[in-house]
Amino acid sequence: MSSAKSPSTSPSIQICRIMRPDDANIVGNVHGGTILKMIEEAGCIIGTRHCNTQSGDRCVAALARVERTDFLHPMFIGEVAHVSAEISYTSKHSVEVQVNVLSENILTGAKKVTNKAALWYVPFSIKNMDKIIDVPPIEYSSPEVEEEGKKRYESQKMERFETKERNGELINPVSIPEPYTVGFSQSSLIHLVGPSDCTLLGFVHGGVTMKLMDEVAGIVAVRHCKTNIVTASVDAINFHRKIMKGCVITVSGRMTFTSNKSMEIEVFVDADPLVEAEQGKFRAVTAFFTYISLDKENRPLPVPTLKLEGEDEQKRFEEGKVRYLQNKAKRLAEKERQQ
Amino acid sequence: MSSAKSPSTSPSIQICRIMRPDDANIVGNVHGGTILKMIEEAGCIIGTRHCNTQSGDRCVAALARVERTDFLHPMFIGEVAHVSAEISYTSKHSVEVQVNVLSENILTGAKKVTNKAALWYVPFSIKNMDKIIDVPPIEYSSPEVEEEGKKRYESQKMERFETKERNGELINPVSIPEPYTVGFSQSSLIHLVGPSDCTLLGFVHGGVTMKLMDEVAGIVAVRHCKTNIVTASVDAINFHRKIMKGCVITVSGRMTFTSNKSMEIEVFVDADPLVEAEQGKFRAVTAFFTYISLDKENRPLPVPTLKLEGEDEQKRFEEGKVRYLQNKAKRLAEKERQQ
Amino acid sequence: MSSAKSPSTSPSIQICRIMRPDDANIVGNVHGGTILKMIEEAGCIIGTRHCNTQSGDRCVAALARVERTDFLHPMFIGEVAHVSAEISYTSKHSVEVQVNVLSENILTGAKKVTNKAALWYVPFSIKNMDKIIDVPPIEYSSPEVEEEGKKRYESQKMERFETKERNGELINPVSIPEPYTVGFSQSSLIHLVGPSDCTLLGFVHGGVTMKLMDEVAGIVAVRHCKTNIVTASVDAINFHRKIMKGCVITVSGRMTFTSNKSMEIEVFVDADPLVEAEQGKFRAVTAFFTYISLDKENRPLPVPTLKLEGEDEQKRFEEGKVRYLQNKAKRLAEKERQQ
Repeated sequence: MSSAKSPSTSPSIQICRIMRPDDANIVGNVHGGTILKMIEEAGCIIGTRHCNTQSGDRCVAALARVERTDFLHPMFIGEVAHVSAEISYTSKHSVEVQVNVLSENILTGAKKVTNKAALWYVPFSIKNMDKIIDVPPIEYSSPEVEEEGKKRYESQKMERFETKERNGELINPVSIPEPYTVGFSQSSLIHLVGPSDCTLLGFVHGGVTMKLMDEVAGIVAVRHCKTNIVTASVDAINFHRKIMKGCVITVSGRMTFTSNKSMEIEVFVDADPLVEAEQGKFRAVTAFFTYISLDKENRPLPVPTLKLEGEDEQKRFEEGKVRYLQNKAKRLAEKERQQ
Repeated sequence: MSSAKSPSTSPSIQICRIMRPDDANIVGNVHGGTILKMIEEAGCIIGTRHCNTQSGDRCVAALARVERTDFLHPMFIGEVAHVSAEISYTSKHSVEVQVNVLSENILTGAKKVTNKAALWYVPFSIKNMDKIIDVPPIEYSSPEVEEEGKKRYESQKMERFETKERNGELINPVSIPEPYTVGFSQSSLIHLVGPSDCTLLGFVHGGVTMKLMDEVAGIVAVRHCKTNIVTASVDAINFHRKIMKGCVITVSGRMTFTSNKSMEIEVFVDADPLVEAEQGKFRAVTAFFTYISLDKENRPLPVPTLKLEGEDEQKRFEEGKVRYLQNKAKRLAEKERQQ
Repeated sequence: MSSAKSPSTSPSIQICRIMRPDDANIVGNVHGGTILKMIEEAGCIIGTRHCNTQSGDRCVAALARVERTDFLHPMFIGEVAHVSAEISYTSKHSVEVQVNVLSENILTGAKKVTNKAALWYVPFSIKNMDKIIDVPPIEYSSPEVEEEGKKRYESQKMERFETKERNGELINPVSIPEPYTVGFSQSSLIHLVGPSDCTLLGFVHGGVTMKLMDEVAGIVAVRHCKTNIVTASVDAINFHRKIMKGCVITVSGRMTFTSNKSMEIEVFVDADPLVEAEQGKFRAVTAFFTYISLDKENRPLPVPTLKLEGEDEQKRFEEGKVRYLQNKAKRLAEKERQQ
């Protein structure tokens, strides 16, 4: 983590909370979605705080993107989740926030790093929700730190641009669901956006959306393998359009790929403004979630192979395989670098 | 279920959600109320969506009636509830929605129909909440289907009319307490202790109890002075006995004292273990909350004097006055010490 | 605040959270209860953590006492509440935690101290919930600091002892209703309508009302038969008037009829607009809920017969019987038609 310091305000924050039964599945594993929601709350607070450390329009930070996130260890009911966030890079219109999550067993004192995440925020004016505000720059501990941040900024900008194109297609459910097929496990839920899901400006907190995405993906995973499952990682997620209060959001998930020990699930979030019909439905977010299956001692179990039907499913499986191999290679490279 | 088709939009919707510990009682049976709430959410979404598929005023569908509903099978924690809703009839000003609820055990794949429900909605304009909007008609698969819908419409209209008389009645308790008396503002609530209210050892977090106490005391205060009120202080609270999961707690509040600018409310928490009857009810906590009344600029407002009836109320008022004067003296002493 | 240091672990913790609409009243003032709950969560975490920094039994800290707490400034929706807690004194069996609450307006950067609180915790063994664990001592910055802590400890011990007598009393209402009578099981709750209970137009979702009705009816049913109960059916419910945001609703239930295997409970919902006093209270909804009692294998159990007192109860019982027989006949007719 960088030691970046903002000139005008402390750029770090600490959130912590006891994990309760409703944060977890029946076996006691805390849902990945609960953790993603806490991560985003910390990011939103620090991003909004930083962008208001200057004169001019007051603003609220909207989540624009979450980088790929790994869940390194499962967390359990009764443990305390510690989320610490700090600003690591600023461009003219965006803020990068680095977040670390630690689980603490307050009975044994044991602590584990469970997640590291990087989020990008864009500040919108309170007076005019379509106006983006200039971000006050932070100070970097060294020119190298700034240079690395700039690289991360350029690379996410590129990726955001690419996914913006793709975010349009609709899902076509297949009719007869045989076990282990894509159709068998695919699932969707709808949620009416309420006031407590929203920021001061009336749009949905990114963390609320991610929690719902994890819920659907988790159901898809259980349907496929009928065992206890936990979130292993989430690929980068881009938030292109804000979802406003009063919308109905439909979150759907389908399995795209299975390896021996993991399942990849693609999740779509579609927003329907209901009342403001002229605006029309739109695809707000898509992402890939990876799950693993665990036995009672929390050891990984083999995952049944996905049965593919048709060329589309075959193609998505191949694409999933590429992502799987890339991530595997990346993890290995990181491990080697750390040794 | 009918095959009714709306000309302009898909008239059906699917909601699904995993049942959580807080949705159920301690044995794991999902509360009927949880299911009723999901049913109504589906109805509200599809009703509102349908009534906005036309030009003119935007509107929100308000629930007017639910037909008799049977709960055919119990549902359990960890199961997924599937709620599907479709519009089955429309009159000029109302929409009938048919809802089916299915429970799915995602581990075994077993599915059961748990509920069928029929709801009637009336759309109200967003611009003028007293104005009812015309409902766009749906298409029926056959004249018989429409005819049956019409019969259901007429019969519910009749019943609604009959109950309106009975229901419109004002609440006439045997003796109506006079405004500003203790009896007028006193209030109580019951709360079934759920898993998320509890620690790992299964007893209620003190903070959960205090939140409920503040809720009741706040309602007593608003009932007394009919203005915006805020908590000013809480006297020392002692927790002598643990309240266990599955208990019903009764929280009751009564006003004991008023000064020019403040109200003191005594709050009692009684715990009832319900099933373990041998243990018996006990008084778990008592405390005094002090509230002040604020105007729109958050400045203190005068508080109406409490009207006392009987010796007990007089005695409690005097005791409250002593606490008030003691606390005032203490605050003054502290202020002087700090200067 | 003392600078007490524990020899084995950091004795301080920071919690923060954005205040949401559901944390506040309609004017935007955060409920005192929301703050008290956060304060206690911080206290519970730090207390439990400290008492587990030694070998021996694992334990959970239970709240024993909260000292008098003042709310120095109102807090508002959108502000961030910062709760910091630290251990300031330990006796053999108890831990004193000092908590400070700060509100931060992340738009303007303004910060205010809103609360200072002192809480006392007692650690209970996880293996044996009645056993109190020894508390590991902390180190004090000076003998004076320790001496002051000891004084606070002695004075709260005295007060606790005094209130124990008063509080230990069993609840003795003027007339104790006899088991199985209507009066014995009847129950009611009040609920302050919050933003998340409401539609975009600011009136309560019908589903929210029905959930509360089921909650009260379920408690009436358990109080009557002291077993696991589930909702079997709900009679038609008519919603004649909208209940608006900011109302207090009173939901009350009383048993009207019992058959061999079922109980019928009548539920009333009364709405009180509180501030808009001219409108006055009104009865918003009434309904009949039917419950059955289940054993551990989910098989129906016999229900104790309702003991009737007075003509009114007799009359309502007869009316309930008519509804019961009608519904039974209807179900039989449907079954035959389906065969």
